[in-house]
Amino acid sequence: MVDKMIPDIVVGRLPRYLQALEHLLNEGIQTTSSQELGDLIGISAAQIRKDLSQYGEFGKQGRGYSIPFLVEQLHNILNVNRTWEMVLVGAGNLGHAIANYQGFMEHGFHIAMIFDNDPERIGTLIGDIEVQPESMLVDLTRRHGIKVAMITVPASAAQAVADELVLAGVLAILNYSPITLIVPDNVNVQYIDPIIHLQRMTYYLD
Amino acid sequence: MVDKMIPDIVVGRLPRYLQALEHLLNEGIQTTSSQELGDLIGISAAQIRKDLSQYGEFGKQGRGYSIPFLVEQLHNILNVNRTWEMVLVGAGNLGHAIANYQGFMEHGFHIAMIFDNDPERIGTLIGDIEVQPESMLVDLTRRHGIKVAMITVPASAAQAVADELVLAGVLAILNYSPITLIVPDNVNVQYIDPIIHLQRMTYYLD
Repeated sequence: MVDKMIPDIVVGRLPRYLQALEHLLNEGIQTTSSQELGDLIGISAAQIRKDLSQYGEFGKQGRGYSIPFLVEQLHNILNVNRTWEMVLVGAGNLGHAIANYQGFMEHGFHIAMIFDNDPERIGTLIGDIEVQPESMLVDLTRRHGIKVAMITVPASAAQAVADELVLAGVLAILNYSPITLIVPDNVNVQYIDPIIHLQRMTYYLD
Repeated sequence: MVDKMIPDIVVGRLPRYLQALEHLLNEGIQTTSSQELGDLIGISAAQIRKDLSQYGEFGKQGRGYSIPFLVEQLHNILNVNRTWEMVLVGAGNLGHAIANYQGFMEHGFHIAMIFDNDPERIGTLIGDIEVQPESMLVDLTRRHGIKVAMITVPASAAQAVADELVLAGVLAILNYSPITLIVPDNVNVQYIDPIIHLQRMTYYLD
């Protein structure tokens, strides 16, 4: 059912649909329409119907979507019907905040290991995870077969960390460092940089 | 020079160009080409030339771009040739990490006030900023004429906080809470949600 040739911009909207649907489900709502969903997330009903139709027929004509069913389908499509082990590299302020964020576990993302190269941080606990030396990153990540990583080191160190992650077999990197990473084509990188988002908004302010 | 009818998707790329250009400048590099810039950030040279041409003629034929000049122009276009005061709502783990992030100040974004509704947090210091009661948010934000805000409260509280920010005259909200906010058309919201980014990548993993 899943066609990997579907444009990435479509793929990028699916997690937002899932987020909104899970929100409705948490509120005890069992069915919705593309119109209601669109109003919730600011995307047109037509766009939602078109995006979802790429993956099959999820709604019944005139009766809308069953939310539990659509949530399950989106979990399958996004490959989040399972737990993903992750490594976190960088145990500073941001690394701490991220390691303590409950939302990862709730969505099936489990931080299995945390690395840093600062001797003062190595051996300390974040939650119940001990910070390990970055020198062990490649070996441990590879040995555990971990494919997903988050980088929260300073910009100057981020590319070297990314190189190590790639060497270890990581295929998906969420990068919080404000620098564009150079990785092989088969490795996916997503960026989280608040400055980029803020500047995109100040553009519209006078 | 700035045409506000330029598509938002173009606007969204400008901060990435600026980030890469500032990175080159920090490395002591004074000129670049659309090709070099494109290689750095994974966008085609043609796209970069087309995007920038919407705002004027920044490169000299065959000689590329002067980086200091282009950086200055992008600062003007993005309205970041000044300091923006911000309020931060939510003084938990993530709020602390954000308040301590040096990158904001380096890019002209100054956290002026921090609010929370937890009595245990009110009155504590984050850096040199005292956490103030959320009950004072509307009044203080309006009185200081602050237009930019960041929300780091739990999802269940985020819409109420957004309503208060809108009431206070805020026009740009960076929302870290995993929920889509409903705001008037003249208010811009950008979202930072690691789950969305992770799911977009697991889609491509088997």
